[in-house]
Amino acid sequence: MTTACLIIIGNEILSGRTKDVNLNWLAVELNKVGVKLCEARVIADIPQAIIATLNECRKNYDYVFTTGGIGPTHDDITSENIAAALGVAYEKNPAAEAILAKHYGEENLNAARLKMSYMPVGAELILNPVSAAPGFRIENIYVMAGVPRIMQAMFDNIKHTLQGGEPVLSKTVSIFMTEGIIAEGLTKIQNDFPHVEIGSYPFVRNNRLGTSLVARNKDATELEKVGTVIQEFILGLGGEIDNTEEQ
Amino acid sequence: MTTACLIIIGNEILSGRTKDVNLNWLAVELNKVGVKLCEARVIADIPQAIIATLNECRKNYDYVFTTGGIGPTHDDITSENIAAALGVAYEKNPAAEAILAKHYGEENLNAARLKMSYMPVGAELILNPVSAAPGFRIENIYVMAGVPRIMQAMFDNIKHTLQGGEPVLSKTVSIFMTEGIIAEGLTKIQNDFPHVEIGSYPFVRNNRLGTSLVARNKDATELEKVGTVIQEFILGLGGEIDNTEEQ
Repeated sequence: MTTACLIIIGNEILSGRTKDVNLNWLAVELNKVGVKLCEARVIADIPQAIIATLNECRKNYDYVFTTGGIGPTHDDITSENIAAALGVAYEKNPAAEAILAKHYGEENLNAARLKMSYMPVGAELILNPVSAAPGFRIENIYVMAGVPRIMQAMFDNIKHTLQGGEPVLSKTVSIFMTEGIIAEGLTKIQNDFPHVEIGSYPFVRNNRLGTSLVARNKDATELEKVGTVIQEFILGLGGEIDNTEEQ
Repeated sequence: MTTACLIIIGNEILSGRTKDVNLNWLAVELNKVGVKLCEARVIADIPQAIIATLNECRKNYDYVFTTGGIGPTHDDITSENIAAALGVAYEKNPAAEAILAKHYGEENLNAARLKMSYMPVGAELILNPVSAAPGFRIENIYVMAGVPRIMQAMFDNIKHTLQGGEPVLSKTVSIFMTEGIIAEGLTKIQNDFPHVEIGSYPFVRNNRLGTSLVARNKDATELEKVGTVIQEFILGLGGEIDNTEEQ
């Protein structure tokens, strides 16, 4: 199993000013290429937080993705602290500089914009068709923008390079019963299918309380089998299965 | 400064099935009571992940909040692993049992529902007016439900007990200029006001690129002063300030 960790860097997420949407988007996209997002962390724009978090996570997971902090302003400090974490120099990347010069024009490439070409030595660019300024990969770390549209474009450019496996498939059975009624039987089903991850998530739909039972596994046949067992279990309890669209 | 960390526990967030909304809500509410959210982590329903994360975070921050994993199903494993992390027994809490018995009726209090009364010994209940099953506090750890409406009701019940300070206020100046143009002058303003946190966040509004400059500080007078300096700086550059509602 290929594992990944996402590090979201930005005071604006922790202050509540900005709602992160990158975690959910990346979780879904990583699964499509067979990479399992195992952890995510949201940290502040503080050098020591970036360095310590990165050094912990890059050892624990196959891939680390970061979002945020690679723009031209004073609060964009991700790149220099990734260099610090890796113990490599933080220098102007000529290829990145050329991209910025072409995008802004030489005469408009001021010091702030030029800052976006500074990276850890050894970084490989991740191109950004939206606003030009590139992200980069170094070792197992993928450094991307925080603006969702830009992050998504960057990820689309590198996803084919990730060494993942088969995507995890899911089968959802939504019912209008509460968890307390189905928990015991569901535990038995989980025990009968130890390799299938079964989750139970309460919801409110059209003012009715319900529960979504979600089975996850890479094997479609196994998943179909578990789905049938769950449905038969629910129908056996006299329950009603809701086939409307996933909430 | 009173500090906090949020630990979001749940495979469903990391698989992309469920979009977390608790981080943003708590970030805003914690600030209102003068507590600074310094970090958030999203972890899987794995005992060792819960234990290791909790033990790291509870030492580093004044308060730790957890969401998720306290329901009646097999994948709800937060409470027992918090007991394990603290090295205390995981036992039935009589007050919690009484609440559940009253809510469901003695005759409907099956083993799964009764599981929700099991907690680390020494836990103090956090009442839940929405669905009865309580969360709990133990030491500096607040254990809450993952369902947003329930989590919010739980937090509302304990927020008056938190020892916070003054809330951080913010002043936003939104402009239709990109970051590269204002970065240098903004750095100077940040250096002139080292105790005010100034963030720069790009946006797209009505198809126009812009930047929100956000100053944050507990002192309203200082903030007003920085806001004026930023506005004068922008007007001096010939920039346009956007006074429409925050995006």
